[in-house]
Order: sequence, then structure tokens, then C-alpha cells
Amino acid sequence: MVYAVIMAGGIGTRFWPMSTPERPKQLLRLFRDKPMIELTINRISPLVAWEKIRIVTIPEQVKLMTEAVPRLSGKHFIVEPFARNTAPCIGLAAVELMQEDPDAIMVVLPADHLITEEQEFIKSVQRGISMVQETDAIVTLGIKPNRPETGYGYIQYERDEVQPGLHRVVTFAEKPNLETARRFIATQEFLWNSGIFIWSARRILSEIEEYIPELYAALEDVQTALEQGGDIIRIKRAYQSIKPISIDYGVMENARNVYVAHGDFGWSDVGNWEEAYRMNEHDSSGNVKYGPVIGIDTENSFLYSEDDRPLAVVGLSNVIAVDTAEGTLICPRDRVQEVRQVAEEVFKLKNKKKR
Amino acid sequence: MVYAVIMAGGIGTRFWPMSTPERPKQLLRLFRDKPMIELTINRISPLVAWEKIRIVTIPEQVKLMTEAVPRLSGKHFIVEPFARNTAPCIGLAAVELMQEDPDAIMVVLPADHLITEEQEFIKSVQRGISMVQETDAIVTLGIKPNRPETGYGYIQYERDEVQPGLHRVVTFAEKPNLETARRFIATQEFLWNSGIFIWSARRILSEIEEYIPELYAALEDVQTALEQGGDIIRIKRAYQSIKPISIDYGVMENARNVYVAHGDFGWSDVGNWEEAYRMNEHDSSGNVKYGPVIGIDTENSFLYSEDDRPLAVVGLSNVIAVDTAEGTLICPRDRVQEVRQVAEEVFKLKNKKKR
Repeated sequence: MVYAVIMAGGIGTRFWPMSTPERPKQLLRLFRDKPMIELTINRISPLVAWEKIRIVTIPEQVKLMTEAVPRLSGKHFIVEPFARNTAPCIGLAAVELMQEDPDAIMVVLPADHLITEEQEFIKSVQRGISMVQETDAIVTLGIKPNRPETGYGYIQYERDEVQPGLHRVVTFAEKPNLETARRFIATQEFLWNSGIFIWSARRILSEIEEYIPELYAALEDVQTALEQGGDIIRIKRAYQSIKPISIDYGVMENARNVYVAHGDFGWSDVGNWEEAYRMNEHDSSGNVKYGPVIGIDTENSFLYSEDDRPLAVVGLSNVIAVDTAEGTLICPRDRVQEVRQVAEEVFKLKNKKKR
Repeated sequence: MVYAVIMAGGIGTRFWPMSTPERPKQLLRLFRDKPMIELTINRISPLVAWEKIRIVTIPEQVKLMTEAVPRLSGKHFIVEPFARNTAPCIGLAAVELMQEDPDAIMVVLPADHLITEEQEFIKSVQRGISMVQETDAIVTLGIKPNRPETGYGYIQYERDEVQPGLHRVVTFAEKPNLETARRFIATQEFLWNSGIFIWSARRILSEIEEYIPELYAALEDVQTALEQGGDIIRIKRAYQSIKPISIDYGVMENARNVYVAHGDFGWSDVGNWEEAYRMNEHDSSGNVKYGPVIGIDTENSFLYSEDDRPLAVVGLSNVIAVDTAEGTLICPRDRVQEVRQVAEEVFKLKNKKKR
């Protein structure tokens, strides 16, 4: 059976003052007034039965997510004792799904990305699933780049298709500088690495066994604990020794016979406020407005007020202005990289106050 | 005896989101974390006994002011049934003070102005009081202008002093355009009209009798009601017929033998956010900061957060950023004239919500 494995462990400080530990990025209502996690679930639902949806997250977030998406229940969650980056998260999901279905196929999805062309997305995933069903391949989704983005990883692929829309991967490239990114685009041999993967649980565990043996050993301990009734303390102990490592670095860059499903479906990792601005619908002044906001001579801006308190922006354009119960941010759109620094300063302010 | 008559009836929308009907401008803590009204009381206290301080205001504001300045008690207030601009306010105060002391001298002060050089201010007021005591003159305080301000009225005066620092007034000029303001400054014969006056209660009432007879008639009705025990309904009825009119337009522009005490004491009417910025102390980056505010690469700005919620401004300079329970404003310093428009839009938003 095909399962969706939605990775939802992140907290994220790049969306201050909207994101907080109590409201991580995957719960933000940045688009269509729905939490990102709900959009992710809805997006994959045409291909995966409701009871085959799994969300991997940490204990603190289970309650937050069931509050945000009330139709989720306990059986939808795979709970990691601690967040340890993507490889342990995917390994744990694979071990748990193997218990249910030794032939489980996993569509692995980040909880906090956006896709605007959902039909195209479904087609790409469908191609990946068929490939995995036929050849037990490792498949990743690659996005046709429309600009020399330096914030994403890239995938180089072989020109010849192995199946319609599917190519063999040549190499994975880390986030490039601008010059390199431009070169990548010019060759037309590179795609953005979306972080969306399709494989069988058995195959990814065998890759982890080969390339991250210490993780595999820990997962075997977890598996034993699960088989003996899921003793939470034993699972926690097994997990404690696991080192954080990403699936890209730990497996994808090493594995053989990796394929990429070529997609062009309006994907963004929504990594900062500028992306949230860009991926939303704009009014005739180029503004994205939410809540009681007043813009006077203000264009191409993101204006967001969460509560009843009006937010007024006069005579400033190309800015992010966000007002929530947590605080208020005003920042030019081309400086959103500095929001992380703001979140750190806020953290310091709060600690100072506590002392 | 010398009384201070502090006029405190205004509401003001130019300080949104700080000023509201529940928190009019005279209660704002724009300087030294004290309400403007308290700074005004403190400023005149060296010259006026505590029990001779009077605040003229409307019923709704008496409670707000005693909350803001708890040492005020009922006897400090002269309550106008309705605000009707400065002439009725001053006339009512004169009538009430005449009951207490037929020779009362009034120092009339707006509640919501700022003066930074209080020693100099006291000297000017002292000169005015002496002049009134000696000659029963009408005295106004004029400020030496340091720029061709178009937001203030001007007073033209005769070059020769009648006493040290005191000149006869030639004429009162309304707010000029920039060209006229420049000409005024060049002549060195013009002062800013501060709206601060000194006169005896008897004299100002006789001026009102001459130049605003219909107001004088209404004030006589009020006086009769006061003499008969202060029946509030009769006072209200007498006041209802009074038309709003300013003391400048109604009396000062007509009266003979008006003198101006020449002052240079860091005065501002604090008419908008730019004035609040300019009259405050600035840090080494030229910022005025209050509350949990974070400025990253932000200069020459007014950053104010009223509650615990941090306000972060990144990479914007010369802005007003104010965050209160009422709302949030971001506005370049040279566009603060548009804040009134913002307050009107907020009012519309609120009404829309109520329907």
C-alpha cells in the first residue's frame, strides 16, 4: 500500500512573529487561511487513503496539530522522541510502516512547503509511485527552476528519459552561490531538490543500513521495542543515541540508481517572508492583505494583522508588515534573511525579562 | 491670587494608535514617561499654589485624568458640559474663578504642549504676571521661531520693549504658507503664538462682553446658576446655546493693549508624531525607543511598543513605528500628516465590524 509520510518536526524562526514554538511553521495559515500541514494532507489525498496518512513529529506537536486539523487522530501520528533531522525521521517511519505492511511504499513530504499546481504535482508523484512499484527504485521529485535561486539544493539529471518524465540522477548539489546557480540553469540539466521522495520502506531501510549503519542499528533497537509492545522508555533510549543527519547527505548523495521525477508545479519551500509574499495572490496594488490592515500609498507589500488590532502602513512599499499576539515586524522584502536575527533578539529580551 | 487654568478638552486623532477617546493627547506619555497634563501641572507649579491649579475639561475626562494623576481631586476641575473651543472654556473658568476671588489672575495653558526649558518659561510667565498685576493688561506668550513653521499661528510685535521682555502686539497672523512664514522670520518681528495667556478673570470677561456678547450672555446664565448652588441642568442648558469659537479669533485679534512676553524656552505644541520624535531625546543612532523594541539597521526613527509584545524594525530609517493595544502604525516621518486619515479609516473599519 502507498503511505504518505509527512515530516513535521521543524520549529523555524524565519516567520517571527507568526511562528513560535507553540505555532511552528507547519501550522501557520500563510495560504488560503489553512495551516500548511492541512494543505499538505489535502494535496496528497487524491493518491493516498486517509488511513494511510502519517505525520512524523515530536510529542509536543501532536496536540497542536490535532487542534489545527481536528480530523487527525492518534493513529495518524508517528512520534519521534526528539527531532534528529530527516534521516532518523524517515528511518523511524519506515520501521513503523514495515510493521503494518512489509511492502509499504512511502511518499515522503515536508509538511511546510507549498505547491500551487496540484494536478501537475499528482501526475509527478503518480509517475514516481509506478517506478517504485515496478523497479523498487529510489525516486525524488525535482522542480524545473525559474530563477537562479541560491536557497535551494539542486539535482543534476541525465538527458535521456528512462520513462516519461523520469530521469536518472547524476548528482546532488548543495545550495550554490549565484554564479554557480546561473551556470546550473544555463545547462538545463539541473532541477531544484524539493525534498519529496518516493520509495519502499524496505528499500530505504536497506540504504540506511548501507550508508548510515549506526542509525540502522538504533532503528533495529526501536523495532525490537515496537515488536515487544512499544515500550516508550526503550524507544526513547534507542533514539537518544541517534545523531542528527539529513537523508540527502546520509543517503541520497551516496545511493545508486536514484531517479528524479521532473516536475513544474509551482513549488516553494516557503523559506521566508519573501516567499510567503511571492506565493500568495496579490491585489491590484501588488499587496497581500490579511485582517484589519490599512495601506495608504503602499504597494507590493505583505500586510498581515492577526487580531482585531488594525495595522496601518503609510507610504512604504515592498515591505513585510506582520502584527500578531507575539509581536510586530516591519522589514523590507529584500531583507527577510534578517528575521532570524530578530527572533534571536526577541528571545534575548524575553530571557532578560525573566531574570 | 494667581490661578493656572489648564485647558484639557481635546481628543485628537493625530496620535493614533496611541491616542483614543479613552486616552486623549493630554494623557499620552510621550515624554519622560509622564502624561502631558502632569508635565504641564509640574511646569507651572513653581508659580501657582497647588490648590489654585484648575483643569477645564469635559465630564468624560475627569475620571481619566484623576486616574492618570492621582493627586488631583474634584476641586481641581472646572467641568464644561461640552467642549466648545477655547473662548467658552476660558469664559467659564473666568466666571468660576470670580466666585472664589474677584481679583483672580489666570495663567491659561494648553494641557498638551511641551516646554523643555522650564526655567526660561517660568521667567516669561513671571514677567506676564507682573505686567497683569501692574496694568491689568492682556498678555500672551510668544516663542522665538527657529524655522519657518507653517503649522503655527504668528504674532507680530513692536520692536521697542515696554518692559524687559515685553512688547506691544501689532497683529495676530493665522497659519501662513511657507513663503509667508519665511518672510515673517526674515523680518525678526514675528513670534510663534503659543496659546499661553495671562490676564485677570475680570478683564477677559469684559473683553468677551465686548467682542463675543452672545457668549457673555450665556456665561451670565451660568453665573446665575452657580450663585444659586450650581444646578447642573441649568448650567448645561446655558452652555448648550454656546457656539464654538477660539479665544484667538474671538478676542485676541480684536482686543486693544495686548502684550506679548517674548520667550525662547523650547516650546512645541506636539501636533503630530514628527514633533513627538523631534522633542524627545535621541540615542546615538538618532532613535527614540520605548518598550521592547528591536531596531536592526534603523536610524532616526521613533520606535514605541506599549505592551510586552516586541516591535522589530529592520532596515528602515526616518520612520514612526508605534504599537499599542489599539493598533500599529508604520509611517515615514515626513508623512505624519496622513495619520489623521489612518484614524478615520480605522474608525470606518470598526463601524463596519459593528454592523
